[in-house]
Amino acid sequence: MEYKVDFEDIQFTLFDFLKIGELKNLPYFEGQSQEMYLSVLEEALKFAKKEIAPLNEKGDRIGAQVKDGKVVMPEGFKEVLANFAANGFMGVDLDPAYGGMGLPASINIAVSEFVMGACASFAFFHLLTRGDCALLQAFASEEQKKLYIPNMLNGRWNGTMCLTEPQAGSAVGDLTTVAKPNGDGTYQIHGTKIFITCGNHDLTENVIHLVLARVEGDAPGTKGISLFIVPEKRVSPDGSLGEDNDVKLVSIEHKMGIKASPTCLLQFGDNGKCQGYLVGEQSRGMVYMFQLMNEARVAVGQQGVALAGPAYEYALGYAKERTQGGKTLIVNYPDVRRMLMTQKAYVEALRALVFEGASCVDYAWHHSEEAVREEYEAYAGILTPVVKAFGSDMGFRSTELAIQTYGGYGFIQDYPVEQYMRDLKIASLYEGTNGIQAMDLIGRKFLRDGGKNLTLYGKRLSTQLQEVLEEDSLKPLAQKILNHLQSFQKAAEAVAAQAMENQHSIGLNATPFLRALGDIVCAQLLVRRAKVALEQIDSAPTEERKKFLQSKIEVARFYVEQLLPEADLNIARILSKDTSAMADVL
Amino acid sequence: MEYKVDFEDIQFTLFDFLKIGELKNLPYFEGQSQEMYLSVLEEALKFAKKEIAPLNEKGDRIGAQVKDGKVVMPEGFKEVLANFAANGFMGVDLDPAYGGMGLPASINIAVSEFVMGACASFAFFHLLTRGDCALLQAFASEEQKKLYIPNMLNGRWNGTMCLTEPQAGSAVGDLTTVAKPNGDGTYQIHGTKIFITCGNHDLTENVIHLVLARVEGDAPGTKGISLFIVPEKRVSPDGSLGEDNDVKLVSIEHKMGIKASPTCLLQFGDNGKCQGYLVGEQSRGMVYMFQLMNEARVAVGQQGVALAGPAYEYALGYAKERTQGGKTLIVNYPDVRRMLMTQKAYVEALRALVFEGASCVDYAWHHSEEAVREEYEAYAGILTPVVKAFGSDMGFRSTELAIQTYGGYGFIQDYPVEQYMRDLKIASLYEGTNGIQAMDLIGRKFLRDGGKNLTLYGKRLSTQLQEVLEEDSLKPLAQKILNHLQSFQKAAEAVAAQAMENQHSIGLNATPFLRALGDIVCAQLLVRRAKVALEQIDSAPTEERKKFLQSKIEVARFYVEQLLPEADLNIARILSKDTSAMADVL
Repeated sequence: MEYKVDFEDIQFTLFDFLKIGELKNLPYFEGQSQEMYLSVLEEALKFAKKEIAPLNEKGDRIGAQVKDGKVVMPEGFKEVLANFAANGFMGVDLDPAYGGMGLPASINIAVSEFVMGACASFAFFHLLTRGDCALLQAFASEEQKKLYIPNMLNGRWNGTMCLTEPQAGSAVGDLTTVAKPNGDGTYQIHGTKIFITCGNHDLTENVIHLVLARVEGDAPGTKGISLFIVPEKRVSPDGSLGEDNDVKLVSIEHKMGIKASPTCLLQFGDNGKCQGYLVGEQSRGMVYMFQLMNEARVAVGQQGVALAGPAYEYALGYAKERTQGGKTLIVNYPDVRRMLMTQKAYVEALRALVFEGASCVDYAWHHSEEAVREEYEAYAGILTPVVKAFGSDMGFRSTELAIQTYGGYGFIQDYPVEQYMRDLKIASLYEGTNGIQAMDLIGRKFLRDGGKNLTLYGKRLSTQLQEVLEEDSLKPLAQKILNHLQSFQKAAEAVAAQAMENQHSIGLNATPFLRALGDIVCAQLLVRRAKVALEQIDSAPTEERKKFLQSKIEVARFYVEQLLPEADLNIARILSKDTSAMADVL
Repeated sequence: MEYKVDFEDIQFTLFDFLKIGELKNLPYFEGQSQEMYLSVLEEALKFAKKEIAPLNEKGDRIGAQVKDGKVVMPEGFKEVLANFAANGFMGVDLDPAYGGMGLPASINIAVSEFVMGACASFAFFHLLTRGDCALLQAFASEEQKKLYIPNMLNGRWNGTMCLTEPQAGSAVGDLTTVAKPNGDGTYQIHGTKIFITCGNHDLTENVIHLVLARVEGDAPGTKGISLFIVPEKRVSPDGSLGEDNDVKLVSIEHKMGIKASPTCLLQFGDNGKCQGYLVGEQSRGMVYMFQLMNEARVAVGQQGVALAGPAYEYALGYAKERTQGGKTLIVNYPDVRRMLMTQKAYVEALRALVFEGASCVDYAWHHSEEAVREEYEAYAGILTPVVKAFGSDMGFRSTELAIQTYGGYGFIQDYPVEQYMRDLKIASLYEGTNGIQAMDLIGRKFLRDGGKNLTLYGKRLSTQLQEVLEEDSLKPLAQKILNHLQSFQKAAEAVAAQAMENQHSIGLNATPFLRALGDIVCAQLLVRRAKVALEQIDSAPTEERKKFLQSKIEVARFYVEQLLPEADLNIARILSKDTSAMADVL
């Protein structure tokens, strides 16, 4: 199955719109250049198309299987993962001191779109390992960093994150895995973890688990949780492997999609021989894990555009080849164009949203002024749950339309779109369900600071829109988005007022609140991209480029006229103060 | 996998709300009674739970398979189909003279919900055979009726409908299958048909295909199409089977869902030995087939509620058992309740919509006054594309929320909800994609008669709402629906005006037009049900019944406040006059 992606849109969004090339002006990225970034992206895309994409269909049909208590992966995954790591793609934005490339998060995120889009099941072997290394880079001891990060980035070892337990899903604080001090600085780990992505496999010589557990006697809830490195096979200080570390694979899940991503039930320390190594300070595990969780949430949100993107490219290609009703290509039927434009609008908007979030992370981590870093940290904090939930839900809706564009063929496994939809469904569920994301946004990111950060972010959106107002042909669109932004701010006030009166209102308003913000941010990004396109269109070197730039303008118009009104629907839900869902009738 | 369905809601909708029991006052149903109807439903439900439901998971995991050029069905299907037919369920609403039960379409449709909900793949062996028999009953010769209908209803033979060809999907008129007269009243059939549901299998001793083909020399397009009976094995006048009729199975499709429903590619007359028998008059095939197509569209629209129903029941059951965050059952979290209420509202609204459509068919077919028959025929004509498209799309959305209610477990095949979603996806695609349904509504059912029938239907909706306005506690809800209905009527005028100015506007407005109408009709049905519930609530015999009746009121409120505003979104799309989807940028 060929991997299709709109690389021109990716470049336009990164370089023309977000001006990622200017990151080189930050001291951390000194000496880098846009050319360098582009060349990494070109190599990564080539690799995704040539090496990763051929795994996708096979991975789905064969799936991860268990033989003799061990996960056996379909042929090809092992070699491709080794080559992927050997090319340096594991740590695009990580510290070169430990084997990373040291590039911006904005470049890494584009690479991630390629990997995820080419084969979603393969992507997790990349994402989690990179995320583990980023966590270790930030919080582990120098010794741990030197031992683990290079061996994980170079492909020898692979990583996981172990949070969920049978009784502790959305509520991580309920976990019961315990860590008993051995007296020598190491711990005995004992517990059961479920839904562990890539928790067992035969692609690398070792699997490094990052495990949340409670040190005996520590506080209940999230406050008493610590983070441990727990290798599948014990690791000597020189990196050589020792004995088995008593991490047992119990079973893997049979899933609707991402069938080549082994989702494992793991038993730690059944024989009392599972050693774990504390990361950072005791009881600070949730703080550390939040970095990885936030990155994983962005990655999962990106799964939306990463799979909706190729699904749209396939649907568009099909619509341009398939005739119906004489010689009419179906791409010319208005209802089909409506579906295609909806997909294109969501794909480009979600891509802009994900990249905008990553660009905020670059400034939050590497800007020289603390005040600026804090500001971008706040933006990233608001965008993370939006990227995760809005990205996965609208991406899913877009793949539905890709199937619909194919007609009956969309349901048939000879065509790739049904797999994209199945592989994508998980994204609204894991890394915190989308309901949890909505509670994160409305609770932690809005109500908790009295709306301070959201107000700041609203000002940014509004200021940026003012610039578009100056462009006559885009003024009506920008004005509509500004109106929606004002409605949203009133809805936010209503949310705060209702929260005082009725404790249930927060949960009832959460999803509409997130959805409304998502639509407004997406429309804002697209109309700003339209302005950039408009500035370039007269000097476009070719007719093709001109059409490309024109499409940015039409997509913005389509989003504002056809999709943005959904924000009104969600705002109406909030303003209705309707609590019928709480009635005792279920 | 147990089949779960809200039988109390089905009874309430049929008997308390739609008053199906009163059909006995029509001469055609003389001598029947509500007790009789209820007893048929109870038997059918028992059969669905005990016999059909056990096929569902097995059917999905094993699927229909091809061995030695013949479809082999998973174990159990054959016996269950035979018992199903032996119980008389094949022809609940068909003429007793040919083996039917002669009951109302409204009772048959409820039986269909049980069958589809218990096992979607199994349902097609029922639906198509019944639909074929209804078509033959209406248009075939007496000789054909006597030969085919009893043998199909009693389970000896099974039926199909053969329309689609590789180059003729939505555009049936492009078909190239030919029929050459043999001179003895029979025809030689030659052509290829694809996507033939239940086109080949080992469940019955013969398969009877109803095939659209063009008699040599007849007009191109839909006007020159005739309808033929083409048995897999030739049939003697006494019903005994003769030689093979040269209908070859080429292959079956590998699909995302309904895996035990064999979707066949059939080759008719490869060896010049395929005999077909004309039904009715030459060149009238599309007229006849439209009856079956309309029934199939309703059945496919019903697939939405039939699968969303049990998916909701499972999600509700899970939410009442699963704790998260200490001992809190997740059913008590407002965001989870929002998801459950959304499912409940769609399920009950779509069920009311499907049953309302069937009840219109009962009056359209059997009322003694022609004017009344015509009126109900018009209502059924409008409701059919709405049932098909709105029913399948909103049903799908509801199963998505069932998965979401389960969290990560929703993606796992140990739980039934992911299969409901996969099995349901096809419903928006076959029997005319939902885009085709929207064009049918806006073109054939609205613009073509200058809005006459839709205006009539709007008056009916409005008159019925006036009755609810008299009930104080429901007045605000009824008034909101009336306001939406007025907005919709303005949107309809805009559609007509835009159609004069811009030919593309029809296709662009089609889907928003259908969706807006769907939401308004659903809200209207629910609020009228709420009035019935309110009238009964004070005399409710038990607390449980009281809660049940109260739920009808809350569900109506939830729909009006939370879901109906989506009609505004779709109306805004129409009024925007936006044509950006037609821009030459794809």
